[in-house]
Formats: sequence, C-alpha cells, structure tokens
Amino acid sequence: MVGASNPMISRALQESLERIRRKMENIRFKIAVMSGKGGVGKSMVSTNISVAFSLMGFKTAILDSDFHGPSIPKMLGVERAELVFDNGFKLVETKYGVSVISIGFLLDEKTPVIWRGPMKANALRQFLSDVNWGELDFLVIDLPPGTGDEALSVAQLIPGISGAIIVSIPSDVSRVVVERSVSFARKLDVPVLGIIENMSYFKAPDTGKIYYIFGKGGGRRIAEEMNVPFLGEIPIDPRMATTCDEGIPFIVKYPDAEAAKAIMKIAEEILNTLGVKRP
Amino acid sequence: MVGASNPMISRALQESLERIRRKMENIRFKIAVMSGKGGVGKSMVSTNISVAFSLMGFKTAILDSDFHGPSIPKMLGVERAELVFDNGFKLVETKYGVSVISIGFLLDEKTPVIWRGPMKANALRQFLSDVNWGELDFLVIDLPPGTGDEALSVAQLIPGISGAIIVSIPSDVSRVVVERSVSFARKLDVPVLGIIENMSYFKAPDTGKIYYIFGKGGGRRIAEEMNVPFLGEIPIDPRMATTCDEGIPFIVKYPDAEAAKAIMKIAEEILNTLGVKRP
Repeated sequence: MVGASNPMISRALQESLERIRRKMENIRFKIAVMSGKGGVGKSMVSTNISVAFSLMGFKTAILDSDFHGPSIPKMLGVERAELVFDNGFKLVETKYGVSVISIGFLLDEKTPVIWRGPMKANALRQFLSDVNWGELDFLVIDLPPGTGDEALSVAQLIPGISGAIIVSIPSDVSRVVVERSVSFARKLDVPVLGIIENMSYFKAPDTGKIYYIFGKGGGRRIAEEMNVPFLGEIPIDPRMATTCDEGIPFIVKYPDAEAAKAIMKIAEEILNTLGVKRP
Repeated sequence: MVGASNPMISRALQESLERIRRKMENIRFKIAVMSGKGGVGKSMVSTNISVAFSLMGFKTAILDSDFHGPSIPKMLGVERAELVFDNGFKLVETKYGVSVISIGFLLDEKTPVIWRGPMKANALRQFLSDVNWGELDFLVIDLPPGTGDEALSVAQLIPGISGAIIVSIPSDVSRVVVERSVSFARKLDVPVLGIIENMSYFKAPDTGKIYYIFGKGGGRRIAEEMNVPFLGEIPIDPRMATTCDEGIPFIVKYPDAEAAKAIMKIAEEILNTLGVKRP
C-alpha cells in the first residue's frame, strides 16, 4: 500500500532490486534450499552441499537468510567474522573454499526491532543490494524455514533462481508439504530440483543394524507420487551436531562416514539434474 | 505507534484484552510451552502433557497458537472440527478429556493475507476475546517456536501465565537458548518452570542398547548451570510420529512405552513445581 501510493519508495525498491540483479549477473546457478518446517537440518544440508560443490572445484557461496537463527557462519567457523565494506560488502571467506553472506553478520542484541514483519525483507533487500558476489558457479540460498510468506519474500529478492530443493525428514514428508513446495516454486517460476530426506535412518555403530527412527522411505515414495525428483537420503550421525558446534563441515571432518558419502552423492545428483559437468 | 496516536484503536485493544482477562478468570494454571527453535517436538510435548493432566483428573484445555503449523488438532483427532459460536466460541472437545482451541480452526487456503506480521497477534487477540473457556484447572499454551517477538506477542495476550516450560533436544540446549528463555519469561513476569529434554536417546528395541543420537545430558547440565529446574527427558520412540498422524496421543496409545512413562513423570514434576495435588 505504501509502495503503491508513494512513488519514491517504489522507485527505491525498483532500484535496489535492479542493483541486486546487476550484482548477481555473474552467478551461473542459484539454488534455493527450503523446508516444510524448522528442525529438519536444512542449514546443515545447505552448508555441506555447498562445501561439496566447493570440493568438486566449483566456486561456491552460500547465502544464509534465516532470520530466526542464522547458524551457517557458526557451522563454517566464521561466526565472529566482520563484514568488510569496500565499494560493497565482500563475501566472507571460510577455510573450506565456500564463502558466505549471512543475516547473522548484521544481527546483534541492539537491533531486534527493525526485524519485525515486512521490515525483514526490506532490510535483507538493502543488504543484498550492497553485496559484491563476484564470479560464482553456485550460490546456495538457505531460506527461512517453511514455504510461507517469509521464505517467499526472501526468495523473491533473488532474481533468476535456477531451482529449489526441499529438505525434509521422513515423518515430515507429506503430500501437503510437497504440494506447498511445488506451489512455492511455481510462484518463483523455478523448477523443483528435488527432495532430500535427512535423518532417514540410524545405523547402530556397534551392530550395524539400521533403525528407521522417524519412519521409512517417505521421501522417495512421495517424490514418486508427486513426480518430483528424489535426490537422496542422509542417515542420522550423532557426530553431526558436534561438527556444527565446532564449525567444521561434517563432510570435511568425517569424509568416510555414510552420511558424508550420501551428501557427496546428493551433490552429484544435483549436478546431473542441472546438466552440469564437474570442472 | 498507530495505537498511541489513535484512541479508538487503543480503546478497542484495551477492551479486547479486558474481555480475554474476564473470560479466563476461572482458569487455575496457565502454562506456556516454548522452544528455542522449531522441530523439537514442542507440540507433541504440549499435547501429551495436557492429556496427562486430563488423565490425572484435571480439567484441561490446550491453546494451539502456532501460526506456522497448527498441528495439535490433528494430534488429538479433531483436525476437521468446526468451531461452534454460542455467545462465544466453544472449546472443541476431544476423545481424550482435554479440549482444544487452535489457530488451525481459523486458517484456510483463502485467508493467508491477514496473517502477515503484526496482524497475527491482532487476529489472535480478537479470536481469544471470543472464546468461552469455562472453568479449567489447566490451560496449556503451545506458543509459536522461538523465543522472539512472535512468541512474545502471543504470550502477552494471555493474562496471568503461571509459568513457562522450555522444550528442547539435547543438541539444541545451550546457554544462549536458556538465557533467551529466561529473558522471555522475565518480560512476561512469569517463572521458568523448567526444561524438558525431548529426543534424549534412542533405545534399540531389539538389543535394549541406548544411543545418544543428538548428544547426551545437555538438558540436565545446562539446567543446573543456569539454576533452572530440569523437568525430565523423553526418549525417541519411532511410534511417536505415527500416533501424531493417527490423531491418538502417544501416552494413550502406548501407555507402557518408556517415553509415555517419562511424559507422565514430567507431568507429575510440573505439579510438584506448582505445588498442586492430584484431585
């Protein structure tokens, strides 16, 4: 309403969107990662997939846009990084090849008020229009949890998203979740690249026996039913929480773990879906 | 700002808060259930604790105020219930003693717009001022996930909350989460009744061996450090997801399960903390 009745605000909006577009021109693929709800490990998946792309030789950055708990800088060991402004914000480099831009770099105890409601998207827009992305193969966009207004407002700030990935856990994958995700992607005019099922099973380290703690095969089943690609399943690994706390990506610390191999395979699968060859 | 400059809006607000207060006068205890983030099983805990109170002979209702995914009606088998208005909204009865009022009864595909930002709390306020609670021993308030503005706006609509409970999983319990929760409770001027740790461990059904999938003992440790009561731990039970889908509370369907006994014990612990005797 304000924008419609006030040509100044409307022009500022247009200009910042145009600045974002121009600054993002040299990114080959922009992948949005979403989830039906919180707590499914979306940020862990975004982080490790990004590191996987990076290990494969792709120049990759990750955008952490989760206002509720921007955890990606911590997972990459750059929680205390400071943004450098040099004719635009510079991407924050990590030890793992991938670079990162996070809402978390902007938040502090003193600024809770500006993040209420629609201000969030405005603040993020302003921020994004000032980031210098440089040349990238991949930008992985970790969206806020859910497929509602908030995730949508954020995703709509990024022009030309190549595709969307849904992260879920077995008990949370339902027809409704996938339908919502498809309708989300439709609003953005991007294809759903597929579903990743996290916490698919727990393999007892002593006996090797597999337990389907949160249900079995839900992701693959619903993907087939709804005609959406199934990108793979990631088992539960108790060490995953620790690596998130330590700031070392799981696939770097435990490359031989079943979960790490699953993540690498999923990254390959995404390349296949996009028709991209490894450099 | 609007409220301050417009006495009409300010008066309407005052009046509806007063109506809520008056209508809630006959509730002995109002317990707010919160979580540091989504996906920790907050609604499952709220539902089962409420059913536990009800089984113990307390007249109990549950208020599901989670806009992002109001799941409690489904967990109680009343997903398709229709609200009856008879000089105020009537509580929806379930088969399990406990009655329920949920945001979910108001939401449909056609009304996404009114739920943006601050409108949420206004809509909920209006709704709550029209509910007839009757006489209750317990009202369990399932807050939106997180301890930020949204959960706070909702909690502030309810006058005289007796205490707040924090639901967490082992890997998510940190000093920061508990600090946030304490500051949340302080803003509401209510005591933190304690921490419930969900998904504490997985006991293999065949070997009886215990696996600490999401870390070990974090809840109890941080509760001690921060001087907040520890209310107990609930193990992972793969059947829990199924009971949520079926609309039968876990403690009703599997009363002998370790997780069910843990929930009953936690309910007792809450009674102790409040100094309440079973009827």
